[in-house]
Amino acid sequence: MGHIKLTVAYDGTNYNGFQRQKNGVGVQQVLEGALTELCGEEILLKAAGRTDAGVHALGQVVSFSTAATVPASHIPRAIRHLLPKDIVVCQGKEVGEDFHARYSAKEKTYCYKIFLTDVVNPCLRNYAWEIKGCLDYKAMNEAAECLIGTHDFSAFRNSGSEMTTPIRTLTEAHWTQQGNELIFTITGNSFLYRMVRNIVGCLVKVGQRKITPDKFKKIMLAGERKAVGMAAPAQGLYLMHVQY
Amino acid sequence: MGHIKLTVAYDGTNYNGFQRQKNGVGVQQVLEGALTELCGEEILLKAAGRTDAGVHALGQVVSFSTAATVPASHIPRAIRHLLPKDIVVCQGKEVGEDFHARYSAKEKTYCYKIFLTDVVNPCLRNYAWEIKGCLDYKAMNEAAECLIGTHDFSAFRNSGSEMTTPIRTLTEAHWTQQGNELIFTITGNSFLYRMVRNIVGCLVKVGQRKITPDKFKKIMLAGERKAVGMAAPAQGLYLMHVQY
Repeated sequence: MGHIKLTVAYDGTNYNGFQRQKNGVGVQQVLEGALTELCGEEILLKAAGRTDAGVHALGQVVSFSTAATVPASHIPRAIRHLLPKDIVVCQGKEVGEDFHARYSAKEKTYCYKIFLTDVVNPCLRNYAWEIKGCLDYKAMNEAAECLIGTHDFSAFRNSGSEMTTPIRTLTEAHWTQQGNELIFTITGNSFLYRMVRNIVGCLVKVGQRKITPDKFKKIMLAGERKAVGMAAPAQGLYLMHVQY
Repeated sequence: MGHIKLTVAYDGTNYNGFQRQKNGVGVQQVLEGALTELCGEEILLKAAGRTDAGVHALGQVVSFSTAATVPASHIPRAIRHLLPKDIVVCQGKEVGEDFHARYSAKEKTYCYKIFLTDVVNPCLRNYAWEIKGCLDYKAMNEAAECLIGTHDFSAFRNSGSEMTTPIRTLTEAHWTQQGNELIFTITGNSFLYRMVRNIVGCLVKVGQRKITPDKFKKIMLAGERKAVGMAAPAQGLYLMHVQY
């Protein structure tokens, strides 16, 4: 009997999110199906984070217990032919019984990818947010600075997670630019429902000079979801890494 | 009656190449179907280049004649809802009767995208060639230099195009590196069947130090397809631009 931690990458395009779904297929059920076949017993997963439909992951973490004797480090190779090409198990590791993919996580890092382009590139439609024209990248970074630290992030929370406290601690929130690509990296102890996409949507308004960095800060402090506006689309979001 | 030139971008992942197919669906038939609906008469396209299954295009050019009175510049917007999201008409222009998307083309530019990574990224599986480890990018550029000019490219031709001369003129062939991404840009008056992918496959062997830049040149001059080895996979190739 072992307790196992897997690092998983997936292209979220063809899934209705990570979690097991009533409508459509979630990444979780495909992964559980393959692990069930590999281990010869029903496997149920705990996951570090639930990603929405269309959101990708390069470093999702799941954990499970099994009586099977497959060494954890062999799982990535052994499971490859049981999984579709858009789900990849990158790493397998034996962990202590007290390890829980979600509750043991200290921090999670997400990236959000924006592509600045005047001509639509159909190869990017599922992997980035394509925006016409320019964005004031310095203003976006100036605004993002106020996110660092411990705050009430109610302004960036969609309904669906009211039971938990809106207080979260972020340790990283900045944009980098490489050619026409703008990448937002954000790290925190945990995130509210739609929080990253709501933050990115509002930071893009700063980049388009529709609101100032100072106004962004006021919106955050006021805590009103309405003032934030539209969330950034799912396809630009990547769960990159979970720290334990 | 007008003669129209369209610039078209497509994600080739879900198509069996550009050309109308007996097996599977080609981009051409989807585009012809949409144009036929838009123009109210059967439209048959001439295309600048045929792309293989899985190959993408950001600047494919097609031409056709129609009695319909739709202004060419309105076509990109008018056709959008008649096309799937992986095919986009970027530009429409009225041209003279003597314009032919293929025969009027002076040069074509292709790009090939390589991603250097030790961990598989399922989001890139259809859009780049993922290679583990490093590539000697300087050696690859040194080898690529010998491609410039007018040469017999028989070494890089797959069977299927023996009827045409193997002499082609290339004006551009170089690699650029941006982070973990290596991009090969190649421009020529026309290309033999699988020529770009065979060149890239052989240049990667130079990058892996399996052959020297000098050996690459000798392989080209000897004209033997066998010495070149495996073609680079389709999913990294993009038809970027057609010059007239």
